[in-house]
Amino acid sequence: MIKIKKGLQVGSQSIAFDDPVHIMSSASVVGPKEGDGPLKDTFDKIVEDATFGKDTWEEGESEMLKESISIALQKARLKTEDIRYLFAGDLLGQLIATTFGVMDLKIPLFGLYGACSTMGEALALASMTVHGGYADTVIAAASSHFGGAEKQFRFPLEYGNQRPMSSTWTVTGSGAFILSKEYGDVMITGITTGKVVDYGVKDSLNMGACMAPAAADLIYNHLKDFDRKPEDYDRIVTGDLGVVGREILCKLLSDQGINIASIHMDCGMEIYDDEKQDTHAGGSGCGCSAVTLAGMLMNELRSGETKRILFVPTGALLSTVSYNEGQTVPGIAHGVVIERGV
Amino acid sequence: MIKIKKGLQVGSQSIAFDDPVHIMSSASVVGPKEGDGPLKDTFDKIVEDATFGKDTWEEGESEMLKESISIALQKARLKTEDIRYLFAGDLLGQLIATTFGVMDLKIPLFGLYGACSTMGEALALASMTVHGGYADTVIAAASSHFGGAEKQFRFPLEYGNQRPMSSTWTVTGSGAFILSKEYGDVMITGITTGKVVDYGVKDSLNMGACMAPAAADLIYNHLKDFDRKPEDYDRIVTGDLGVVGREILCKLLSDQGINIASIHMDCGMEIYDDEKQDTHAGGSGCGCSAVTLAGMLMNELRSGETKRILFVPTGALLSTVSYNEGQTVPGIAHGVVIERGV
Repeated sequence: MIKIKKGLQVGSQSIAFDDPVHIMSSASVVGPKEGDGPLKDTFDKIVEDATFGKDTWEEGESEMLKESISIALQKARLKTEDIRYLFAGDLLGQLIATTFGVMDLKIPLFGLYGACSTMGEALALASMTVHGGYADTVIAAASSHFGGAEKQFRFPLEYGNQRPMSSTWTVTGSGAFILSKEYGDVMITGITTGKVVDYGVKDSLNMGACMAPAAADLIYNHLKDFDRKPEDYDRIVTGDLGVVGREILCKLLSDQGINIASIHMDCGMEIYDDEKQDTHAGGSGCGCSAVTLAGMLMNELRSGETKRILFVPTGALLSTVSYNEGQTVPGIAHGVVIERGV
Repeated sequence: MIKIKKGLQVGSQSIAFDDPVHIMSSASVVGPKEGDGPLKDTFDKIVEDATFGKDTWEEGESEMLKESISIALQKARLKTEDIRYLFAGDLLGQLIATTFGVMDLKIPLFGLYGACSTMGEALALASMTVHGGYADTVIAAASSHFGGAEKQFRFPLEYGNQRPMSSTWTVTGSGAFILSKEYGDVMITGITTGKVVDYGVKDSLNMGACMAPAAADLIYNHLKDFDRKPEDYDRIVTGDLGVVGREILCKLLSDQGINIASIHMDCGMEIYDDEKQDTHAGGSGCGCSAVTLAGMLMNELRSGETKRILFVPTGALLSTVSYNEGQTVPGIAHGVVIERGV
C-alpha cells in the first residue's frame, strides 16, 4: 500500500483516508426474483411479495429500504438514536422511496441522487462525514424496485412492452451500511468522485453503453490519482453495466493501456441467471450494486477472500422528460476503495 | 458567541466549524418575473427570455445554472479546474437540470435532492468538505424553473389551471456559491441537518403548510444544539414558506416558547410583489432561497448590515406519483449559520 500523507486530497478527484472509516455492518433486502438468483444465499432477507405488503410498488420500496436499515442496525446492535446522519437515495423522481422509507426513523437526512451510482455517492459522503469527525456513526443506503422503476422510466408493467437484449432488469433490492469511526474489520480507505460523462448515447434501453464511459473515466482517474495498477485490487466492481457495458468498459480502458478484464466484476451480471431468469443484459438500479456489496462482496472481504476492492457503481442520468425531449443519456460513476483490515 | 470545542459535533444534529469556511463568491441568475420583483437590484443577471435561448424549460434551467456557476467563478477569479467538487441539485425528476447544466464543467459532482431545501443541503455538505480538508475550493449550487416545475409537479402551463391563494410561484432562478478554506469576508460557521417531518398534510398546493413543521423542528433543534436564542441572529431566514407557512412556523415555535417573528424573513415573501405580480402566497423552489441568499442576504452580510443569519431553506417532499397515490407531503429543512467575519 502506498504511503499517503495526511493531506487527504489525492490527485484531481480523490480522497485517501489516513484514518480509515470502518463498516460496522451491512444489510440487504431483496424481492423474489433476486431471491431466485445466483446470489440468493448472500442476502439477509428475501421477501416473496414484491409489494412488501403495501399497496404500491413505491410504498413497497420504502418498506424494503426501512427493513434493510433496521437489519443493519440490529447487526451492529445500535438504535436509530445512535445514528447521527443518514445518506440515502433511490431512482424515483424526488426520491419518494427514500422520503417515506426513512421518515419514521427521525435521523437527519442528506438526500442524494446519483442514479444507479447512488450507493457509491452515499458511501463516499458518509465516510467523509465520519472521517472528518462530524459523526461517530452514520448510515448509507440505496434502493431500487423493478415495478416502480419501469413505471418511472419506461412503461407500466401492465403494458407488457418487449425488452431489447441490451436492456437490463432493475433490481428490487435495498442495501444499508453502518459506518463508524472504530468498529468493523472492513474499512473504506479512499474515494474517487465522478464527473458527468456524455458520449452522446440516446438509447435508454442500452444503459450499459451510456454508463460505461463514466466508469472508464472514473477507474482511469482513480488509478492515476492513487498511483495504482489494476493488480493492486482483487476486484474492480462496477454496478450495473451488464454484458454490453462491460465490453465497452474493458475496451475503453485497454485503449489507455489498462487491462482490468481479469479482475473486473459487474454486479448486474452476477445477480441474475439470464438463461433461467430471462433478464437479458443483467441487473441494474441503485439496489443492484447496493445488495451485491452488502452481501457477496462484504462476505468476501470479511472472510479475507478478497483484501481490497474498488467499488464503482455507475448511474445513467436521464428522466422521461430529458429522454422525450431528445437529450442524450450521460453517465456518472463514484468509486469507493474497500479493504479488509490487517 | 459560545465557545465551541474542537469536537465539531454539537447537540443531536448540528456541526460547529471551529475553523469557519469562507464564501469566496456568490452569484444569482433569474428569469424575467424575478427581475421585475422587489429584489431585482440584487441579482447578478436577469434574463428576459425564460427559456434562456433554449428549446425547452428544462434546457433553459440547465443554461441558467451554468451561467450562475460561471459568474461565481468570474467573481472569484477562478476557473473550473480550480474547483474540486460540485454539490448541486434541482427539483426535476432525476436532477436533469443539474446533469445537463454541469456536464461541460467536468467537475466531480455530488448530486443532491432536498426539494426546495437543496441550497441548504449543498452548502452544508460543501462546507463540511472544505472544513474537513477534502477540498480547497468547491461550488454549491441549486436551481429551479417555473415552467419546468409546473410541468413536473402540477400541470403544463398551457393547461391554464387556477391557482389557489395558498399556492406559491416557483422561482426561475439559480444561485451558486464558491466555498474556500481562506478567502472571503462572509463565513459558514455551523450547520444543522434536518429530518423528514410529516404532519399529514396532503395538499400539494399548500406547500407552506407542508414545510412549516420541518422548519420549526429545525430551528428549535438548532437553537438547542448551539445553546442560542433567536436574538443571537440578525435574521432567521426560511426559504419558501410563503404567507401561510410563515404563520404556522411562528405559531409552532411560539408554542415552544420561542419567538422569532421579529427577526424571521421568508425568501418566498420577499422575491415577488404579490399585489403587482399575482403570485399568491409567495415564491418557492430551490432557486428562491438560492438567489435571495446569493444576492440580497450576501450583500447585507458583506456590508456588515447583518452580522449573523440562520439560513433555513425548506423542502416539500412529494412527486406526482406519491401525490397521486395518496401519500402525504412531508417536509425537510436544512440550516446553515452564515456570519460576517470580524
